[in-house]
Amino acid sequence: MSSDKSFDVIVVGAGTLGVAAAYYLQKNSPDKRILLIDRYLAAGQANTAMSAAAVRNMFASSTNQLLTDTSIKYFEHVQEELKCDLLFEKSGYLWLLSEEQFGNPSVKTWIERMERSGISYKVYSKQELKEMIPGLNVDFSNDEEAELMNLQEVSYGLYGADCGFLDPTRLVEYYLDEFKKISHEKPRFGVNVEELIVEADPKLDLPSEPYVWQKKKVTGVKTNKGVLTADVIVLATGAWANELLDPVGIDSQTKVKKRQLFVIHGEDKPPLVELLNTKGFSDIGCIPFTILPSAGVYFRPQLQEQGFWVGCGDKFGREYKYVQTDDDLVPESAYYENSMYPVLSKYFPAFTDTRPTNSWAGGYSYSPDRIPFVYMESGVLVINGASGSGIMKADALARIADALYRGEEEAELFGGKKIRSTALGQKGRDVEVESVII
Amino acid sequence: MSSDKSFDVIVVGAGTLGVAAAYYLQKNSPDKRILLIDRYLAAGQANTAMSAAAVRNMFASSTNQLLTDTSIKYFEHVQEELKCDLLFEKSGYLWLLSEEQFGNPSVKTWIERMERSGISYKVYSKQELKEMIPGLNVDFSNDEEAELMNLQEVSYGLYGADCGFLDPTRLVEYYLDEFKKISHEKPRFGVNVEELIVEADPKLDLPSEPYVWQKKKVTGVKTNKGVLTADVIVLATGAWANELLDPVGIDSQTKVKKRQLFVIHGEDKPPLVELLNTKGFSDIGCIPFTILPSAGVYFRPQLQEQGFWVGCGDKFGREYKYVQTDDDLVPESAYYENSMYPVLSKYFPAFTDTRPTNSWAGGYSYSPDRIPFVYMESGVLVINGASGSGIMKADALARIADALYRGEEEAELFGGKKIRSTALGQKGRDVEVESVII
Repeated sequence: MSSDKSFDVIVVGAGTLGVAAAYYLQKNSPDKRILLIDRYLAAGQANTAMSAAAVRNMFASSTNQLLTDTSIKYFEHVQEELKCDLLFEKSGYLWLLSEEQFGNPSVKTWIERMERSGISYKVYSKQELKEMIPGLNVDFSNDEEAELMNLQEVSYGLYGADCGFLDPTRLVEYYLDEFKKISHEKPRFGVNVEELIVEADPKLDLPSEPYVWQKKKVTGVKTNKGVLTADVIVLATGAWANELLDPVGIDSQTKVKKRQLFVIHGEDKPPLVELLNTKGFSDIGCIPFTILPSAGVYFRPQLQEQGFWVGCGDKFGREYKYVQTDDDLVPESAYYENSMYPVLSKYFPAFTDTRPTNSWAGGYSYSPDRIPFVYMESGVLVINGASGSGIMKADALARIADALYRGEEEAELFGGKKIRSTALGQKGRDVEVESVII
Repeated sequence: MSSDKSFDVIVVGAGTLGVAAAYYLQKNSPDKRILLIDRYLAAGQANTAMSAAAVRNMFASSTNQLLTDTSIKYFEHVQEELKCDLLFEKSGYLWLLSEEQFGNPSVKTWIERMERSGISYKVYSKQELKEMIPGLNVDFSNDEEAELMNLQEVSYGLYGADCGFLDPTRLVEYYLDEFKKISHEKPRFGVNVEELIVEADPKLDLPSEPYVWQKKKVTGVKTNKGVLTADVIVLATGAWANELLDPVGIDSQTKVKKRQLFVIHGEDKPPLVELLNTKGFSDIGCIPFTILPSAGVYFRPQLQEQGFWVGCGDKFGREYKYVQTDDDLVPESAYYENSMYPVLSKYFPAFTDTRPTNSWAGGYSYSPDRIPFVYMESGVLVINGASGSGIMKADALARIADALYRGEEEAELFGGKKIRSTALGQKGRDVEVESVII
């Protein structure tokens, strides 16, 4: 096997999770030959680029709290101390909650666990929210439409200060540059993995082996540019994991849903600009990333565009789909108009008569407990199922993947906190179910 | 809606799980109009008919022990007291284990839990096995081939007396007949469910509703014979669950693997006939269902055919496949020859030079913890993921499904033991991971 075809590790997927994993693997195993490949012509072009690029440590499970809080602190460190601008801004997260939602046991648990983990949060009353947020509608009495739409009145706000946005392209570039500085192998782009290669271990050179009585492992990948082999294949392919894992009989336990973002420009709409420039929550002086009480509708401010990205985490009724091509992820034009707009404009009349100027879609890879998976099986190190919050967990997940690769029992996350390397595995999984999924 | 299109409950799938569920639902809700439908032209024609038709209560998880033990006792009751012959015979199950396997902590746990649950088992020594089983090879010393094949020598036998076989067609007929006696609706065959219908609840008669802000539920099924509606759709479709659940956004958490059985006739082979007629384990006087120490290979005796059905539970390397048509499940002719035969003939030289006279394949629907799912979500009552042991759990699963339908907190299984109705759910799941999967 010529040396440009054979490696110690191949990292498949140069999204946020792939580049971060490649970096930590190389950093902690400096002699290993680690090849990073991606089907696109550059890093971070797939679902990383489609993301809402928001980061939050406000999760209900202590596992997700740990993964995000340490990752976010690392992103701050990169920006403040390492002077690499990730355009990370703490504009906050704001959940608008109804009386009923606020009284829900799961919200109580969420708050208790944030308290215990030292996650910064603040509760706002309806009155405070009304005073702070221009045009927020907290009164649906005598609004028959709102009642028909099952909209619940805003009674509380749950705000997190250590949340915000960053530029995922910059984050990918940061990890990629750091990786390239220490790597022996130039990343290869435009390399599409068509299948994982399973071989007998050891090989007996029998026709059409491996047979069931042989030990076997994944030894490489078949790509559009030929076969590449490695001792370990790191799979950081997000929404495309099943395409590669199903054929070798590894159940990823994840399924993909399409998620869409619609861009609403505020320029010609003074009430929208006013909403965007809501003061009082953060130093940035803008409305936080805001989650409405109904239907999973949310928006994030987009200061450069003087507008908003509007999304929706619809649950039952939105298909799980085996995403195989980019065509599977075309945004639906009527989705904003019929499903999101009616909700948005009830709570925030400033959105009245808005139409999206742009839209895109991506695939979220969901795990059943909404906690990511990191595990090694038969030569494949899988990082998957971040359930829409992979970027904000990338640093921690990559460190865990690296610890697993090196056979360490524990992974040390940024700031020194530790987690068992197999805690996010399929076997011996030790996590709390996440209830705060957007 | 005309009355032959609209029901209280539609049970989709007339395999063992579907007919048993239809029966208990109707029995305990005598006034409800319950329609049973199946894509085939008769009941039990799909994976029920492809099964190895073996039943065992020897599981490692107390959940599976409870589900099987109570179901098997009910099958005995049906045969002995109700005088409906299911061709149920307690020919036993025999795991042949190596020294290493027997010392494995998971085997210790398995035995401890059987002890605690009062599951009958017996441990045989190598010497006892040698004396009882004609031609069993327990010595691979100086057998280089066996070493290359990773075959482990038999050191122990773990035997279960309350295990055996039944005729799944008769079991299906039993439940179906009982259901028909009390049902208001004639089962309909040749009715293929193409999709689950999701509707707004309540409907607002808006174009292309439901929207994300509407409550919604499954209200019926679109079939090749038109639309049928019901308050609750029971999904007992086995390997085809994802085909219906994915499009409505319910993650079944199950994946399907192909499983194959090969028939070996003993007629002209005296050593095979001798093996088949092994005495000493059960009153039947035949070799038990036997699981070899390596590669997941097993066989069951087939007295009527004077032969064996040979199967294999291969794990990594056997694809998970989205089974959509019967063509996906054609048996592989080389599989017996290359993968199963070499293992089988090492442990049991009586199989030397055998070739299958028949073979077939079916789909097992696996759950991650190898425990079945029974849950109600958005109008669908799902019974799925029995992981290859659905027939032997059918009675218990059907009773749990019925309790869930009636909103009961607990289901009473045959013999009076109880289980929380939501114990097998996706939320609040309360089960031990099953380690003894064939």
